[in-house]
Amino acid sequence: MQEEFASTLLESAVTELSRLPGVGRKTALRLALHLLRRDESEGVALGEAIINLRKNIRYCSVCHNISETEVCPICGSEHRDHHTVCVVESVNDVMSIERTRQFAGVYHVLGGVISPMDGIGPDNLEIDSLVERVSAGDVKEVILALGATMEGDTTNFYIFRKLAPFGEVKITQLARGVAVGNDLEYTDEITLGRSLLQRTLFTDSFGS
Amino acid sequence: MQEEFASTLLESAVTELSRLPGVGRKTALRLALHLLRRDESEGVALGEAIINLRKNIRYCSVCHNISETEVCPICGSEHRDHHTVCVVESVNDVMSIERTRQFAGVYHVLGGVISPMDGIGPDNLEIDSLVERVSAGDVKEVILALGATMEGDTTNFYIFRKLAPFGEVKITQLARGVAVGNDLEYTDEITLGRSLLQRTLFTDSFGS
Repeated sequence: MQEEFASTLLESAVTELSRLPGVGRKTALRLALHLLRRDESEGVALGEAIINLRKNIRYCSVCHNISETEVCPICGSEHRDHHTVCVVESVNDVMSIERTRQFAGVYHVLGGVISPMDGIGPDNLEIDSLVERVSAGDVKEVILALGATMEGDTTNFYIFRKLAPFGEVKITQLARGVAVGNDLEYTDEITLGRSLLQRTLFTDSFGS
Repeated sequence: MQEEFASTLLESAVTELSRLPGVGRKTALRLALHLLRRDESEGVALGEAIINLRKNIRYCSVCHNISETEVCPICGSEHRDHHTVCVVESVNDVMSIERTRQFAGVYHVLGGVISPMDGIGPDNLEIDSLVERVSAGDVKEVILALGATMEGDTTNFYIFRKLAPFGEVKITQLARGVAVGNDLEYTDEITLGRSLLQRTLFTDSFGS
């Protein structure tokens, strides 16, 4: 739908806003008109925050998580277990796992998963730097914590093969099974089948 | 929910994005991480478009619609009927009415409706400038095209009283009734009652 905008400024703001995921031209127009109704300072602050984010963001040189400093607080902490590296797809996943408060190791952010359909191969991801970290010899366990998708599985397998030469390193992956709070009725067959095959001792599920 | 962000840049981008209507902190984080995954130029273009929109936008000196020029293309057009002024709440409403292609007159954008709850009184709106336009003598009809809400009705009534001294000017409002495509079953009683009282001759509804 081509709208007739009264102003090219409005037009270009709507075009840029509608590039955001989940934002169509109608929503983009609503957002732009909202900004026009609010104080000028609010719109300028939003614009500047986005530009600053995009221009000045830095990544940890060890784990590639977002960081203010050369090495991020997690990689720099004495209280974390630096022998256990959890491999995740994105910065978002680091936050999700941190929120569980169940993990005291460190991370490695791949920056995506292998997805030939989207033109993302191993060279576009931080896989070589992971191999380098492991080859340095300090890592005892690598936890593959990618999504349970075809792309996630492919990436898991690729990393597994890359790390195979380092025989002494344990490679684990997140448990797959019935999600907490889900009825069996609504659990898909593959998940249910896997969680039967990989059943755990009853006491195990309470960590004892 | 207070998140632990790895970067104050990310934190402030999320805070600013979450001020947008319909955007919570979770969506704001998703948008910010999306911008980080895309090219730097895309994020910068978005930020600059927002700043430009907010800093450089101009409004038509006659109708207060958004405009690139001192007088907007609608107010400046020879093909529009300058004797008929349609009063609307916002820029958005001008676009909605233009899309119907049923109106050849000109507009007057109030910039809101009277809403004491939100601290918006007549002085915050472009009502005085409307009275001035009408008092200049060229206007023959004022169409009140505000929303069918309590605030819209209040504003309609306020404007009606302000324009009453100019007895020769016809004041009309949008027809209220059953929306096209709506079943009676789903039409509220007040609308249905009004549309009965204000029923039109059958041929009328086809504009003949």
